[in-house]
Amino acid sequence: MGIKITDTTLRDAHQSLIATRMRTRDMIDIAAKLDKVGFYSLEVWGGATFDSCIRFLNEDPWERLRLIRQKAPNTPLQMLLRGQNLVGYCHYADDVVREFVRLSVKNGIDIFRVFDALNDTRNMEVSVQAAKELKAHVQGTICYTTSPIHTVENLAEMAVELEKMGCDSICIKDMAGLITPTAAAQLVKSIKAKVKLPVDLHSHCTSGMAPLAYYAAAEAGVDIIDTAFSAFAWGTSQPTTESFVAAFQGTKLDTGLNLELMSEIGEEFNKISSTYRCLYTCEATQPSIGVLLHQIPGGMISNLVSQLRQQNAFDKLPQVLAEVPKVRADLGYPPLVTPSSQIVGTQAILNVLSGARYKQVTKETKNYLLGYYGKIPGAVNEEIRKAIIGDEKPISVRPGALLEPELPKMKAEGEKLGILKTEEDLLTYAMYPEVAAKFLKGECKEECLLPSTPEAAKVEAKTEAKSAPVFN
Amino acid sequence: MGIKITDTTLRDAHQSLIATRMRTRDMIDIAAKLDKVGFYSLEVWGGATFDSCIRFLNEDPWERLRLIRQKAPNTPLQMLLRGQNLVGYCHYADDVVREFVRLSVKNGIDIFRVFDALNDTRNMEVSVQAAKELKAHVQGTICYTTSPIHTVENLAEMAVELEKMGCDSICIKDMAGLITPTAAAQLVKSIKAKVKLPVDLHSHCTSGMAPLAYYAAAEAGVDIIDTAFSAFAWGTSQPTTESFVAAFQGTKLDTGLNLELMSEIGEEFNKISSTYRCLYTCEATQPSIGVLLHQIPGGMISNLVSQLRQQNAFDKLPQVLAEVPKVRADLGYPPLVTPSSQIVGTQAILNVLSGARYKQVTKETKNYLLGYYGKIPGAVNEEIRKAIIGDEKPISVRPGALLEPELPKMKAEGEKLGILKTEEDLLTYAMYPEVAAKFLKGECKEECLLPSTPEAAKVEAKTEAKSAPVFN
Ligand SMILES: [Co+2]
Ligand SMILES: [Co+2]
Repeated sequence: MGIKITDTTLRDAHQSLIATRMRTRDMIDIAAKLDKVGFYSLEVWGGATFDSCIRFLNEDPWERLRLIRQKAPNTPLQMLLRGQNLVGYCHYADDVVREFVRLSVKNGIDIFRVFDALNDTRNMEVSVQAAKELKAHVQGTICYTTSPIHTVENLAEMAVELEKMGCDSICIKDMAGLITPTAAAQLVKSIKAKVKLPVDLHSHCTSGMAPLAYYAAAEAGVDIIDTAFSAFAWGTSQPTTESFVAAFQGTKLDTGLNLELMSEIGEEFNKISSTYRCLYTCEATQPSIGVLLHQIPGGMISNLVSQLRQQNAFDKLPQVLAEVPKVRADLGYPPLVTPSSQIVGTQAILNVLSGARYKQVTKETKNYLLGYYGKIPGAVNEEIRKAIIGDEKPISVRPGALLEPELPKMKAEGEKLGILKTEEDLLTYAMYPEVAAKFLKGECKEECLLPSTPEAAKVEAKTEAKSAPVFN
Repeated sequence: MGIKITDTTLRDAHQSLIATRMRTRDMIDIAAKLDKVGFYSLEVWGGATFDSCIRFLNEDPWERLRLIRQKAPNTPLQMLLRGQNLVGYCHYADDVVREFVRLSVKNGIDIFRVFDALNDTRNMEVSVQAAKELKAHVQGTICYTTSPIHTVENLAEMAVELEKMGCDSICIKDMAGLITPTAAAQLVKSIKAKVKLPVDLHSHCTSGMAPLAYYAAAEAGVDIIDTAFSAFAWGTSQPTTESFVAAFQGTKLDTGLNLELMSEIGEEFNKISSTYRCLYTCEATQPSIGVLLHQIPGGMISNLVSQLRQQNAFDKLPQVLAEVPKVRADLGYPPLVTPSSQIVGTQAILNVLSGARYKQVTKETKNYLLGYYGKIPGAVNEEIRKAIIGDEKPISVRPGALLEPELPKMKAEGEKLGILKTEEDLLTYAMYPEVAAKFLKGECKEECLLPSTPEAAKVEAKTEAKSAPVFN
């Protein structure tokens, strides 16, 4: 039994390299070819693709899923689901979560990779249950991070919880590309010692270590690795699919996949990537070890830069970069991933620009301390907690449990606007009321793909990336 | 003792990615920084750099070496030497070889990596001896290739020969990026079982396997790996320096190098690379497994394409690609590297275009069969040999031994032309009489670095690359 491969080219790879701008029209022909390879799964949906479809591409994300499903009937289709946040940036009510999962299955999803930014399994409960009830495969996810309170052992312990929840496999999600080969091997071994489930390693080449981490994990017994075809691999994206298939050929890890076919598909993706060449930037295509030195993921740094630029305070970047790890420590070491990366980053900027730490506090920081995002991984700095929320008690329940059902209200609103033609439209509207209304009314336009000059393209890509600064 | 690193950014990396076009002015400041890192060595000279300096950059290669030496007094400087071919494309007489090595040492080279395209150690003898006599470090090189007659065992056996010749270390040179992690580990172990010398692994990411091969080799005990800074890594170049330093930190393979400093230098190289951005092509920056399927290195394919285009026979490419492995087999499986790649490629084209195999035969193919390039690795197809050279006996001596001393004649010529100001000028002239004469007369112009449009840049880069189609 060789190693299995989840190909991410149609989801995470283009999300990471070209801000999720690949069009459905560029996916459908190749989906049929990908279907012939024999991948463990194709990650094709979820993450930022939903948002990007309706915000930038004037595309119905549900329609994309159906088209891919039609072209690739034989390979399990996989999506990334942000637990109670689904494919959005805030907690949705349970009824929205359940209905979203139901329609995802109905339209073609086989495997749900479910995660929570704080590794709080309570935020994953409802979506995991909903998917299990529909007999879908659930991959429970451990967000990998490093901090004084995160160890291989306690990260691996989460796998036990996920197994208890009914997850069918475990994903180690290294969204920032921090995992070293040694850590990857240790974590895989530790998880496999605790649970009987298949383990998947998902990383990004941001620091350039991911190929090595995959190799070490493979030797340590990882079952599945996430890769992307060459034209959309490396840099902030995944390691290269073809290269791993080739590297393991003839060994006990042999994927059994056909190299000729891989090469053919690789060439197809080369052609497709040429359409998007203007969106590739050196920052995205080249690894950098900055993330390891400052513990700040690349996507988060560019976000801090643009926030500082907006406030004419770009010169404060070094202070802000130094402040980020301190705020993260004060807040009990959340993994830096959407939305915690934004909470920490924005608070760090305020701490620097306002002249005194926590003199100004965002609503998000306050809600975070009050437990509305979930359980805080480590101990919060007591002094700072006092100063911000005083004697107010954090909630002790699952945050989603506090939300009233939202669908009836959204349905009424949507009908009043006359924008709900299908049951999927309701979910699109519930997820992103403002953007979706515009999209469903037909007022959205596909953004221009070939700007007049490469310079214009860069400016454009940067400006728009701000709207959805996510990396998961 | 951790693993050691030879950084190739100033030689092989830019040779592989941007056709050896990095200017000396972009090397000197960063050389001082590189000198502080503590690399095992810096590969900065040799290979195609010499040719490129005088042909395209209007730069004195010797002056480049002296400047780097001045800025980096503490780190061993390394060059790639093509055995009896030195930094050219044909065998030079022994006096030229000895004098070239002497002046290389005089101007700053500490480590000579010496190879021969056919792995014929006789072609390495004179340069190895010359370097040893001057107390330089000699890294004897095994050109890695795959074929029915090449095995890990017989490749490793060459290390014994190199040790006997006095080599101080062994390099596994995988110029085409063919080596798998399994093969790399086996070869390293096999060599280390046979000789006591340090072993270096040099590969290219052409097929995307090199980072994995390095990792597997490191586990197997390789002493040195060759890497390049991120902006000039990956694709047809080496794996990433910073990423390997980071990946091994805190393990028994820890390089001991400072990550902060690596990051700083990485940023510098990012800036430098922006100057050359117009020369980067997808073909060079992205891995492709084509080389594994057809056994034809990427550089050789583009060369075949341009030869066919020149003869208006581009449509014959598939037949030529199919013919190449057959010609290679007929000729006893030479590694496909300069100059054997040209011999095989050109003959394959003739075999296809002339309508019958070996109906037309190049002078080079004939000379190859007569032993003028060195000992042929495997058995030659007898029928074809007969047809081409009949009863003529191949030479049985070292090819270089047949060449009369060349320096006196070149000196007389050069003096008559009035172009020899230094002893180094004589070697430049002896190496490339035609190009060097133009250069030494001051008639060479630095090629334009920023063409009017990116399209023009591509055309230009491709056209010029033809002049020096090398990949070693
Ligand atoms: Co990801
Ligand atoms: Co090389």
